[in-house]
Amino acid sequence: MFSKVGGMVVAGHRKLDHEFAFIKEVSSYFKPYRAKQTLVPVGDDAAVYRPAEGMGQVVTTDTMVEGIHFKRETMSSWQIGYKALAVNLSDIAAMGGRPTYFIISMAIPDDWTLDELLEIYKGMKHLADQFEVDLLGGDTVSIPDHLVISVTAIGEVEEDVRLLRSQAKPGQILFVTGQLGNAAAGLDLLLHGRPADGHPLPEALQLLLDAHQQPHPHVAQGRLLAQFAREYAISLNDVSDGLSSEANEIAAASGVDVVIRKEQLPVSRILLNYAHQRGIDPYTWVLGGGEDFVLVGTAPVEAVERMKQAFAAQNFPFYPIGYTTEGTGCVWLEGKQGKVRLDPMGYNHFRQKRD
Amino acid sequence: MFSKVGGMVVAGHRKLDHEFAFIKEVSSYFKPYRAKQTLVPVGDDAAVYRPAEGMGQVVTTDTMVEGIHFKRETMSSWQIGYKALAVNLSDIAAMGGRPTYFIISMAIPDDWTLDELLEIYKGMKHLADQFEVDLLGGDTVSIPDHLVISVTAIGEVEEDVRLLRSQAKPGQILFVTGQLGNAAAGLDLLLHGRPADGHPLPEALQLLLDAHQQPHPHVAQGRLLAQFAREYAISLNDVSDGLSSEANEIAAASGVDVVIRKEQLPVSRILLNYAHQRGIDPYTWVLGGGEDFVLVGTAPVEAVERMKQAFAAQNFPFYPIGYTTEGTGCVWLEGKQGKVRLDPMGYNHFRQKRD
Repeated sequence: MFSKVGGMVVAGHRKLDHEFAFIKEVSSYFKPYRAKQTLVPVGDDAAVYRPAEGMGQVVTTDTMVEGIHFKRETMSSWQIGYKALAVNLSDIAAMGGRPTYFIISMAIPDDWTLDELLEIYKGMKHLADQFEVDLLGGDTVSIPDHLVISVTAIGEVEEDVRLLRSQAKPGQILFVTGQLGNAAAGLDLLLHGRPADGHPLPEALQLLLDAHQQPHPHVAQGRLLAQFAREYAISLNDVSDGLSSEANEIAAASGVDVVIRKEQLPVSRILLNYAHQRGIDPYTWVLGGGEDFVLVGTAPVEAVERMKQAFAAQNFPFYPIGYTTEGTGCVWLEGKQGKVRLDPMGYNHFRQKRD
Repeated sequence: MFSKVGGMVVAGHRKLDHEFAFIKEVSSYFKPYRAKQTLVPVGDDAAVYRPAEGMGQVVTTDTMVEGIHFKRETMSSWQIGYKALAVNLSDIAAMGGRPTYFIISMAIPDDWTLDELLEIYKGMKHLADQFEVDLLGGDTVSIPDHLVISVTAIGEVEEDVRLLRSQAKPGQILFVTGQLGNAAAGLDLLLHGRPADGHPLPEALQLLLDAHQQPHPHVAQGRLLAQFAREYAISLNDVSDGLSSEANEIAAASGVDVVIRKEQLPVSRILLNYAHQRGIDPYTWVLGGGEDFVLVGTAPVEAVERMKQAFAAQNFPFYPIGYTTEGTGCVWLEGKQGKVRLDPMGYNHFRQKRD
């Protein structure tokens, strides 16, 4: 792995010299936080590490494709790198894990410059430093068009901790660990809502852009929940595909119904104002938008007060937003006018069907 | 991870229903060989496994891109899947590791049918069964064109085993664990050498096609070498980029010179005949072709007789093909006319420069 840009036989060795310099440059960015654990670092056919005793190894992968998951018009190279790692750390967080290592595969078209590629790695490095995860290797190949970044992240979690989407029970509280919808509103802002040339973006709106371009993985929150998971049955997902979708996954996997209380959903005033200005129902973003990368889960009523306190002690928000009931795996949105069914496609889809 | 085909926000949920059925179908292919070790299998935000005690975790990744690393005209879907996993298992083998798990990321264009995709997974499954590795997860996303498959493979190796490319010492024997050049000749055959319509391919040539389309990772050979690595300094690579390139990596990483004895190179009669028929110097493929996925390394002279015996006892070939000397990281090809320098670009490149 970490081979040259260029295919094995067909593409030949067109960029070999460049590539060795590239790998050397990239590798120098990343500080080794886990040198003692890392038996063979980046640079051989594979890397080898010694797992900490008694820790399960958590593994996840996420792929981002140019034109599908990001555009150069709406994300800087730095942000693309940052986000490619962030979405994977968020999956580790959703298992209650502590991220330890990551591996990058990139398929790179000719129209990306060396500087842009290095910026991608710098974005990853920023997050790697923050969470003290080590780059363990990767592969870099050519592709005719559309940059593809696959990151595989590895983490560790105590072997007896289970934070699964299938662990919801009837009569539990539904919670989230942060505001919803900001990332989707941020994308809308990037695509449709930018002020005319010369007019600066109102500073408050930066919150929405950051949510889309630089989501913060809730690793510390996941570690807190891992502590509670040893005592209580807690279900957990990260909000990558929107609350409707994630809640439906929990409901279906656990065989319970999930009821979301619309009034309890944590929505920023900034999002509400921006939605109003755009003439869009904010709950399209809040329920269906996705990419918030907060955690959503269920916990027993008796645990919730202690969880709130534990979160508050670290200045983390913790929002109860609904409850579970006996059921058949459905999700409901409960508002002033009663309950309506929310399917995995999200609020938007539901509204289209109803309209 | 293992999310739906379709992007997060931009691409929406176009294929969601299909995708759940797809994942269910795919997951059912793979037998769990490591159920006891697997604490959380495929299906949540991440998978969790318990590493075997005292075993270092070996991690590697390799990416294959349609049009660069494979073409639908020269590889069946089944073979594409097989090979995507095989090249990763070969990297694990080159560290002396036993493969345990793998993770798949696929970026899929619209012009691939569901049946073709399922065939890709069946090709992987064939190899997964052979080596008893478990699918631990993945991600499946859309891409406008060119299928991309990234596999990350995990393995385990005794913590005190080191089979690094940097471990060659002067005065060692250079060896390979299988024939060279067949894969490159097979690719040439697929691109240029097929008989006219209606004429069957001579059966003997199947060896070359298999070498390109279904390379066999030398995992068992790597495990044998791991035993010797506890006693002797052994350097090791797998031959993914051609013998010239791999030997140069060992020479450069170890700071020794490597001398390849042309007469000792294991070359099949079938390759020699086919090269003659095509009017091509066979050593273009043998030294520069790549993708043979045999192992190449160096070992102390005093270990070689025992290594030969250990390999013979399992019916594995073991070919001494040269030696190392004090030097500055260069590779030499020694033939009847004396020694010529081989650069990492391979024999072909060298010939062009000389001609």
